[in-house]
Amino acid sequence: MSETNCHNANQTCWSCPAVEFKGHVDFRACGQAAFRKAAQGQLVVECKRRPEIGYFDPTSITFEHCTEWKKTDNGYLLDGMRVLILGMDGYLGWPLALKLAKLGCKVYGIDNMLRRKLVDDRGAQSVIPIETMEDRVKAANEHLDVEIDFREMDLMDRDSLFAYIKEVQPESIVQFAEIPSAPYSMADVDKACDTIQNNVVGTLGLLFGVRDHAPDASIIKLGTMGEYGSPLTGRPLFEGLFPGDAVLQYKGEEWSLGGELTPRDPVSFYHVSKVQGTFSVYEACKYWWLRSYDVMQGVIYGNQSDELAAHPSLSTRLDIDEWWGTVVNRFVAQAVIGMPLTIYGSGNQLRGYITLKDAMQCITRLIAAPPEPGQYDVVNQVTDVMSVKQIAQTVAKIGAEFGLDTEVQRIENPRVEAEEHPYEVIHDKLKDNFGFASESTFEDEVRGMFQALMQPEAVARINAQESKLFPTTKWSGEVGELKVLETWKPDVPAKEAA
Amino acid sequence: MSETNCHNANQTCWSCPAVEFKGHVDFRACGQAAFRKAAQGQLVVECKRRPEIGYFDPTSITFEHCTEWKKTDNGYLLDGMRVLILGMDGYLGWPLALKLAKLGCKVYGIDNMLRRKLVDDRGAQSVIPIETMEDRVKAANEHLDVEIDFREMDLMDRDSLFAYIKEVQPESIVQFAEIPSAPYSMADVDKACDTIQNNVVGTLGLLFGVRDHAPDASIIKLGTMGEYGSPLTGRPLFEGLFPGDAVLQYKGEEWSLGGELTPRDPVSFYHVSKVQGTFSVYEACKYWWLRSYDVMQGVIYGNQSDELAAHPSLSTRLDIDEWWGTVVNRFVAQAVIGMPLTIYGSGNQLRGYITLKDAMQCITRLIAAPPEPGQYDVVNQVTDVMSVKQIAQTVAKIGAEFGLDTEVQRIENPRVEAEEHPYEVIHDKLKDNFGFASESTFEDEVRGMFQALMQPEAVARINAQESKLFPTTKWSGEVGELKVLETWKPDVPAKEAA
Repeated sequence: MSETNCHNANQTCWSCPAVEFKGHVDFRACGQAAFRKAAQGQLVVECKRRPEIGYFDPTSITFEHCTEWKKTDNGYLLDGMRVLILGMDGYLGWPLALKLAKLGCKVYGIDNMLRRKLVDDRGAQSVIPIETMEDRVKAANEHLDVEIDFREMDLMDRDSLFAYIKEVQPESIVQFAEIPSAPYSMADVDKACDTIQNNVVGTLGLLFGVRDHAPDASIIKLGTMGEYGSPLTGRPLFEGLFPGDAVLQYKGEEWSLGGELTPRDPVSFYHVSKVQGTFSVYEACKYWWLRSYDVMQGVIYGNQSDELAAHPSLSTRLDIDEWWGTVVNRFVAQAVIGMPLTIYGSGNQLRGYITLKDAMQCITRLIAAPPEPGQYDVVNQVTDVMSVKQIAQTVAKIGAEFGLDTEVQRIENPRVEAEEHPYEVIHDKLKDNFGFASESTFEDEVRGMFQALMQPEAVARINAQESKLFPTTKWSGEVGELKVLETWKPDVPAKEAA
Repeated sequence: MSETNCHNANQTCWSCPAVEFKGHVDFRACGQAAFRKAAQGQLVVECKRRPEIGYFDPTSITFEHCTEWKKTDNGYLLDGMRVLILGMDGYLGWPLALKLAKLGCKVYGIDNMLRRKLVDDRGAQSVIPIETMEDRVKAANEHLDVEIDFREMDLMDRDSLFAYIKEVQPESIVQFAEIPSAPYSMADVDKACDTIQNNVVGTLGLLFGVRDHAPDASIIKLGTMGEYGSPLTGRPLFEGLFPGDAVLQYKGEEWSLGGELTPRDPVSFYHVSKVQGTFSVYEACKYWWLRSYDVMQGVIYGNQSDELAAHPSLSTRLDIDEWWGTVVNRFVAQAVIGMPLTIYGSGNQLRGYITLKDAMQCITRLIAAPPEPGQYDVVNQVTDVMSVKQIAQTVAKIGAEFGLDTEVQRIENPRVEAEEHPYEVIHDKLKDNFGFASESTFEDEVRGMFQALMQPEAVARINAQESKLFPTTKWSGEVGELKVLETWKPDVPAKEAA
């Protein structure tokens, strides 16, 4: 096993959720720096898993030397680590459950099944058929030999949630139980408010539950690169917090900005809800010594992972409609049914992207290397930065390998966003600190999606929701059709054309 | 009238809520700078109040030269300007209603009367008796000769709210309808979630109502200086947005930070809710060309204004308990009943303060000089920066003028906050751009409060809630009494001692 895969070998019990502080160490402070200093050499802990060790200095044992942490492809992982996935029925929740279970974690999950309902309300559907949660859990047992504990439960039902947290005693909690659609959040006041209510109030409630019932669990919070917006100055999009060597200059004086949250400029009320959640988590870590990684995720695409591939009944959902699909997935679906790929505005908008498979690796690595008590950190979870036009071009090109003749269309932009802007994303931490190495490429993933979506059942499912692929939700709140500005057929290399 | 009082004489119809855009000018953009440039010379408007002018260039008429804008002590004010105050029954809402009505505005308001209920639930009460809203409105008519339109209504009841906005067609909307207590928001999960839900979801709903029914109204949003926290580097606390000459330096390169929101570090979930609201308003201005001033208000104290003084039945509430009172008001009440003034922690925490009277002047001046369409701006509404210890010292000193012999006590800090920190507040905009000049001083205001609170009914009301003055709500969620660390009697100049 390479060094990279053991990225967390040198982490110590200081970060381990199995450790319990003994004696009263009042290490609360308002800055992480102050806290780390205060904590030097004063800590005594006991291990909940190995009480026979007695009291000890938590920095004296590394994961590599602890018998409870086991080597895996994603670094050391706490043996039978209890991970609670909120939103387990979703696009990301389900593949993560399978991956973690396969790695030996004890996986628990809740979902209120809202995503299925909302997609259905829209007259859309997953283009890959998915099973009920009951059948999925059975299939996971049958095909992957894993046990997954699932409860249908609403994040907002705090009594049930807290009881479950108390019962499970999770060592890591993954918060995927949010309504994830930008256009949905802009469609009308009720949808905007539901998004904020579910995402912001839901996450806040969760934080109290963690404080009271699992204060040592790491919280993996899903944010989005869209929290940052795209500053026209071209300044770097740091990973959530200004780095220590970022300096503010003003009227001849200088101050370090290190550790302060960078400015945010979210691009829809959905993204606003993510920024709002960021502040709740950031402060809970400060007030209560909770610990969290806030994941600023690029646009996810694809439907592949080793575990999902084990059997069709394990598939995760794949949405392609205007509200619930994301751009790459929608483009592939459009190409499959011969519909032009619809670019909003200039198509020069740059965004960060990552495959489902890589995203699952990232999250797993974050779980495997928990933050220290009180630590709030942010990672930008992105592998490629591409323009929408580039994406359309590549999807058309790969479509040609499958005999598809694809047009691209620019339409009026329904969103309020800069269409020409720099985009300097820093995304070093996952690679440098967590050992992440991409296992999939854009082209291969798109190829895999074409294979999946050209199956007759998928084609039928795309055709059935064709009218939901073209955007209708305008950020302005206006109603009316979006004009097509331009249509063209991308040059596709002759050898690849059908 | 001095120049200062006519600060907005040179503003033009471009900022006036009575103006309606004609023709389709697509001036949406993602940066204010880009927008201002795009708008140069392209705009044609019509005046809703003076349709006889026909179409014209909105920058060609100033408030000074428009017959609809009338000179007042707070600058030019739109004649009979329709102002909607959300949260009119509150500490700030009521005095603002009286002041604006007296200045000739048509004042409308809603309140769900929640503050009265929550204070009552706490076993506390306003130390100054207040009338029902029905009686207040009658008293305003009788003693100030003004008409105020009040409806009991919940901000979350969007159907009623939107209907009222549609009916009133407000030209300015003041959003005071938020739950304003830091300790309340930290007391338990339900109170935290209620705070976020009311403040954040409530404000978001409002924004849609403004977009759809009063898009030209200016939105005065109440934030708090507590959104910023107190960065230990001592960097300036700018007014919400980085100024144009603030520069980010990183790895040898430089970028302007101008116009980006500064980092926030809110000090309780109540303050988190204010930050969250900031993002909703900021984005609504960007998405929809709404216009807003976000007021980062220092801690308000006092109970005086010219209009409130007109008759006792016009009084505004004055809370002094741990949850609903603020520090200065509480200290005066403690001094009155001979209870030691309770300082949390070191007492060296620096904060910005402003009197009720000055705050009302500030808000009025903001209403009188509306933002441009799409403009989001932030002001720091503060006159004095003081430490808690200084405040205790001064309250004790002034108490001595009233024959009171006051002790000061340091107790364990129930909050999570830095107790020693720099605090460089920039608060220039209200003075420089809006003509604000303070009309009251800390000492005079405290003196006025002693006069009011030493009345027998007030004394009885303080005594009745004595047990609610000493803090019990710990940020940590722990339960248990806070230890007294130190008690002393401040030196009071002999001539002032009783």
